[in-house]
Amino acid sequence: MPELLILSKQADTYRSLLEAAQLPDLHILDGAQAGNFALAEIVFGEPDLIRAHLPDLRGLKWAQSTWAGVEPLLDASLRRDYVLSNARGVFGGLMSEFVLAYLLLHERKVLQRFAAQQEARWDATLTGTLRGKTIGLLGVGSIGAELARTARFFEMKVRGHTRASQDCEYVDEYFQAGQLPDFASGLDYLVSSLPATPETRRVVDAALLARLPAHALFINVGRGSAVDEVALIAALQSGALAGAVLDVFEQEPLPPAHPFWTTPNLMITSHTSAPSFPVQIARLFVENYLRYAEGQPVKYRVDFERGY
Amino acid sequence: MPELLILSKQADTYRSLLEAAQLPDLHILDGAQAGNFALAEIVFGEPDLIRAHLPDLRGLKWAQSTWAGVEPLLDASLRRDYVLSNARGVFGGLMSEFVLAYLLLHERKVLQRFAAQQEARWDATLTGTLRGKTIGLLGVGSIGAELARTARFFEMKVRGHTRASQDCEYVDEYFQAGQLPDFASGLDYLVSSLPATPETRRVVDAALLARLPAHALFINVGRGSAVDEVALIAALQSGALAGAVLDVFEQEPLPPAHPFWTTPNLMITSHTSAPSFPVQIARLFVENYLRYAEGQPVKYRVDFERGY
Repeated sequence: MPELLILSKQADTYRSLLEAAQLPDLHILDGAQAGNFALAEIVFGEPDLIRAHLPDLRGLKWAQSTWAGVEPLLDASLRRDYVLSNARGVFGGLMSEFVLAYLLLHERKVLQRFAAQQEARWDATLTGTLRGKTIGLLGVGSIGAELARTARFFEMKVRGHTRASQDCEYVDEYFQAGQLPDFASGLDYLVSSLPATPETRRVVDAALLARLPAHALFINVGRGSAVDEVALIAALQSGALAGAVLDVFEQEPLPPAHPFWTTPNLMITSHTSAPSFPVQIARLFVENYLRYAEGQPVKYRVDFERGY
Repeated sequence: MPELLILSKQADTYRSLLEAAQLPDLHILDGAQAGNFALAEIVFGEPDLIRAHLPDLRGLKWAQSTWAGVEPLLDASLRRDYVLSNARGVFGGLMSEFVLAYLLLHERKVLQRFAAQQEARWDATLTGTLRGKTIGLLGVGSIGAELARTARFFEMKVRGHTRASQDCEYVDEYFQAGQLPDFASGLDYLVSSLPATPETRRVVDAALLARLPAHALFINVGRGSAVDEVALIAALQSGALAGAVLDVFEQEPLPPAHPFWTTPNLMITSHTSAPSFPVQIARLFVENYLRYAEGQPVKYRVDFERGY
């Protein structure tokens, strides 16, 4: 019978959810007992907590992350003698809500109208619309694909920039390596859902930003390393870019002295775009455990080299 | 050959659009010449402008409104010896964007996070989500139906309250006259797209508001007369209702001294939720003119008695 260790800030919640699922042939270890770490064949939890205990997890065969991002476990210095899977497929909907919230905040002039209200001023300025706009998706994985589906629902035109895959039916036009300038030209909205890998580092740089029209909005829901911070601040300060919404940063929490806090037309959302709701993540674990228990490959396995 | 008079603040834009459409057998009169009013068989424009000239439009057979709301033309004292059609089908998408914008503003705590940013404070408060929430639609006409489709896309449960029709496939549960209390019980969001008619007057009253949970949000994109203003202010002031977003009012522009301006958790959007974009409205006129020219009944004909 496999032994499971839960390493999560919400371990009690996850234990209740997994017990309620009555998984066959699974024993859940008491994480409070340090001696139990060596017994665990399966670990389920946050990548940073798993990393902290990696040396003690001597029987580890499979680790299921509660997060999408698994950077803490990717350092080349760490062991890779186990299967690592991340959380996927559950964040796309939440990310779509997030991106929609800020695209609409912008088009609908929500903050401007709210300011007018403070002055008891009727502000009938014409509103904008998402319909007919062009959105560019940097990365079309499970999150990008759901963003594409949502954009299409609102009758936007969808461009996708990927490394290789072209299998999302909601993308109107695909671009690949070497085509970044064409991809970015004329976009109304640019959204990055890129993971942190050596290849995605500083993809959003001065050259890319220079291709965007001055009315464009940039949203980052992927990882902070994809953005050249200095170039983004310069574009916003000069008015070359209308706005940016950043949920992720190279350093989190963002340090109080960081210039982003006071950059004009920049909104900071403190890595809240797609929380891991335990009910959803537990369901994902249950599905993957049933595969594992039957000897099938688990879903959403991470390639340690590729980084996602 | 029918003579058309355009009575709109955007008459020049509409004239260009209709000329470009090269409608068969149609002559567009010069609206600057008062003598032309008596020649017009068709009028296309804003209901308030049409009303002002109604006595002069002696040859009028058909009036196409550029707006959805045609209240200025519904007074029992006015002539009804012509066909009146309003603008429909083009506002649903814009209204959906509007409603989504404010539901997400609420769930995503956008204003709270923006305030935190002003203090350079990392605010990782858990976000809410639309998924699994229940939305109640007061009125399921062409706008309500599009709201239902959008709500379903975001995996909400959809209740509809209508006078008679039950033909929207995106409504999970229908309620009718006498069932308002059940309709409202437990709703997360209540959205009215009701027109101004004697029957819809003060539908959103103290009794209805009392059925909503304290965390609920009310949005009005229909007409202001559907709301008991005093009851709504009381519910917001007491905390019995979490928030309201009002785009429409009994008196517009809302007078500067109106208590709505300073009611807590109330947002005012100054009748901007679904502007009549000339390209869309002109397309609607073209479609309807082609029906008219062929002797078919026009679409979206208004019933003067019913009021929509």
